[in-house]
Amino acid sequence: MSESPLQEVTVPLSPDAYSIFIGTDWWSGLGGKIRETLSDMSHAMLVYDSEVRSSWAEPLAEQLRGAGVRVDLVEVLSGENSKSVQRLEQIWEQMRVDRADRQSVVIAVGGGVVGDLAGFAAATFNRGVRLVQVPTTLLSQVDSSVGGKTGINLPDAKNIVGAFWQPSLVLIDTATLSTLPPRTFHSGLAEVAKYGVIADAQFFGWLEQHAEALAKADHEAVRHAIAVSCQTKADVVVADERETSGRRATLNYGHTFGHAIEATAGYWKFLHGEAVAIGMQMAAHLARALGRVDDEFVQRQHDLLLRLQLPVCWQDAEPELMLQTMQSDKKVAHGKLRFVLPTRIGHVELVGDVDEKLVINAINACKI
Amino acid sequence: MSESPLQEVTVPLSPDAYSIFIGTDWWSGLGGKIRETLSDMSHAMLVYDSEVRSSWAEPLAEQLRGAGVRVDLVEVLSGENSKSVQRLEQIWEQMRVDRADRQSVVIAVGGGVVGDLAGFAAATFNRGVRLVQVPTTLLSQVDSSVGGKTGINLPDAKNIVGAFWQPSLVLIDTATLSTLPPRTFHSGLAEVAKYGVIADAQFFGWLEQHAEALAKADHEAVRHAIAVSCQTKADVVVADERETSGRRATLNYGHTFGHAIEATAGYWKFLHGEAVAIGMQMAAHLARALGRVDDEFVQRQHDLLLRLQLPVCWQDAEPELMLQTMQSDKKVAHGKLRFVLPTRIGHVELVGDVDEKLVINAINACKI
Ligand SMILES: NC(=O)c1ccc[n+]([C@@H]2O[C@H](COP(=O)([O-])OP(=O)(O)OC[C@H]3O[C@@H](n4cnc5c(N)ncnc54)[C@H](O)[C@@H]3O)[C@@H](O)[C@H]2O)c1
Ligand SMILES: NC(=O)c1ccc[n+]([C@@H]2O[C@H](COP(=O)([O-])OP(=O)(O)OC[C@H]3O[C@@H](n4cnc5c(N)ncnc54)[C@H](O)[C@@H]3O)[C@@H](O)[C@H]2O)c1
Ligand SMILES: [Zn+2]
Ligand SMILES: [Zn+2]
Repeated sequence: MSESPLQEVTVPLSPDAYSIFIGTDWWSGLGGKIRETLSDMSHAMLVYDSEVRSSWAEPLAEQLRGAGVRVDLVEVLSGENSKSVQRLEQIWEQMRVDRADRQSVVIAVGGGVVGDLAGFAAATFNRGVRLVQVPTTLLSQVDSSVGGKTGINLPDAKNIVGAFWQPSLVLIDTATLSTLPPRTFHSGLAEVAKYGVIADAQFFGWLEQHAEALAKADHEAVRHAIAVSCQTKADVVVADERETSGRRATLNYGHTFGHAIEATAGYWKFLHGEAVAIGMQMAAHLARALGRVDDEFVQRQHDLLLRLQLPVCWQDAEPELMLQTMQSDKKVAHGKLRFVLPTRIGHVELVGDVDEKLVINAINACKI
Repeated sequence: MSESPLQEVTVPLSPDAYSIFIGTDWWSGLGGKIRETLSDMSHAMLVYDSEVRSSWAEPLAEQLRGAGVRVDLVEVLSGENSKSVQRLEQIWEQMRVDRADRQSVVIAVGGGVVGDLAGFAAATFNRGVRLVQVPTTLLSQVDSSVGGKTGINLPDAKNIVGAFWQPSLVLIDTATLSTLPPRTFHSGLAEVAKYGVIADAQFFGWLEQHAEALAKADHEAVRHAIAVSCQTKADVVVADERETSGRRATLNYGHTFGHAIEATAGYWKFLHGEAVAIGMQMAAHLARALGRVDDEFVQRQHDLLLRLQLPVCWQDAEPELMLQTMQSDKKVAHGKLRFVLPTRIGHVELVGDVDEKLVINAINACKI
């Protein structure tokens, strides 16, 4: 197979800028890239998702061993349940037994679950060891591996415990997506479409032109989509690393509705990106009702999401229940509902104090 | 009782400088100081040591409630065993139940155990909520509450998990020391003497002049000693917040020996400051053998520590065993022993590659 060009996106955060490298079929080059970037590393804790052991994690471990790095492997059972205090404690303990220190690097190979869990272990062991993210799901490649949020869940609250801890390097090989279940792949495209709506009208146009190529995971199209997505997320994160200015909140477009969909549907019904896609449509309807966008906006977003194989409606939505869920969300200040809403393709704003009736109507508009 | 003047030490760390206020019998002013500094706070998680519940924690909770702050109390059982994953998990869970959010502030009332544990919970809950340190032991007033190190122990490794998380405010009332067991109080004086040796010859001279006043916990003397100690630690921390330049390592004077004393004696035999005092004497003997200081240095430090009611020798020391412990310490690079050693009162340097025989001799010099 001929080698694809490697794309680089830089995240200029202080004190240490880091790079995201994106390519196809360059797995055999990953070990070298890691060694080159972290030249004083002598030990790797390679934390990986059980689903990617033989295809991706073990080959990377072999490369590193071949380059003289001591490698310890930590397998994390596939699934959100692994983002737990118990699993975290085991990783800490294993890092201690394996004598992880300042020359060690945690390498997370897997989706957002492994990235968040291993990232938090890296943030806190020895008060911080370096971290390399090697995301192997589309969602983690365009979202969770970039920006430095790490963390775990408590039994009744997702992502409630964590730390900001930027990686030293993010390595993406779109070849990993070939082993991903199609529904999981398509789910990641919702976040990609989200970047177009919130920040980049030109990219939205490009997505409209390449929707079918993306939906069938054409590598060239996927590489471009990942690179633009990472760049957009990086820009937002650099402007507002710790979520203090409100800018980072724009990444939550579709997510207020989306979280309420996940919570009321039960977490098994929709994948995260699927709930976000429906949530984006609800947000579009809400923006329309507030006179912020026109019908054409709603239609264009609808059509793109559909062509990316994403759901745009939910027949069983329960508007009142969803509303309650939103109001009990910790991000709601004093019970007032706040949404990220578009004004046009490529621009969103934080809108506070939205009338509950309009929220109900927006949900009903997607209950078909 | 007439009010003592309140002393302020500023820690100019970016992005947020913070203040340490030191006074005597001003407990009733603490709530107001917290409210004034963190004006948007609406909720306090007051985490306290079981030993200080009725005398210090509950009165502070009442003040805050009186000022309209929602206060939740978390009692931590006295003792190092509370710095555990299990206890941390319970605090996280309680913060969730109590709906801690961005308007919440964690207030740690107790010694280093509570400060480190509650500080780490603050660093990680919701990826970071604000923290106020209210240290109630001398050790925590001059050392652990300043500088932003927080963390917990794993069963076989102290302080191995944690985060750098600076407090928004540190409040010290020397009146809290009146309920402290005398041995615990004197133990804290070892760290005070340490600051004189590592950074401030003038302060060392002041300590020589006021050793008896300090040993009997005279408030005026103690206030001055705390203020200078905090200032010295703050200077070091500002120069090297994340332990990258080596400067922060100077705070470990006496600690390489001290940790080996604690580990080989069993943690119940010596209090931390007692082990540090003996360790400082061993380090002084080692520096003498290397021709870095003269006999007068060794004698002056010895006499000061004695007058501060601290041990300076350990009859049962096992030099070989202590040496092994030092060599297995994670801070030892490639098995080479490195020590913080004085060149004169007020100045120390990192000395690498020290001959084992001299280390054994230095331990034997204090085995009387
Ligand atoms: N840190 C952040 O900024 C951020 C942002 C968004 C989401 N997240 C978190 O990310 C998580 C979701 O991430 P995700 O969607 O990647 O989920 P995931 O990590 O659970 O991966 C999805 C599924 O794909 C499997 N898998 C992973 N790579 C594979 C591959 N190459 N081939 C075959 N199967 C593979 C996994 O075993 C899992 O079953 C959530 O926990 C969410 O909270 C974090
Ligand atoms: N974070 C840092 O930079 C740093 C620095 C040095 C030490 N430490 C940590 O600090 C801890 C030791 O701190 P410590 O010496 O304060 O121990 P501690 O917190 O265990 O307190 C010592 C004892 O005093 C009791 N106590 C506390 N305040 C009291 C009061 N006002 N009246 C009566 N009793 C009181 C406690 O219950 C305990 O029994 C260790 O865990 C150590 O690792 C941290
Ligand atoms: Zn998302
Ligand atoms: Zn100490």
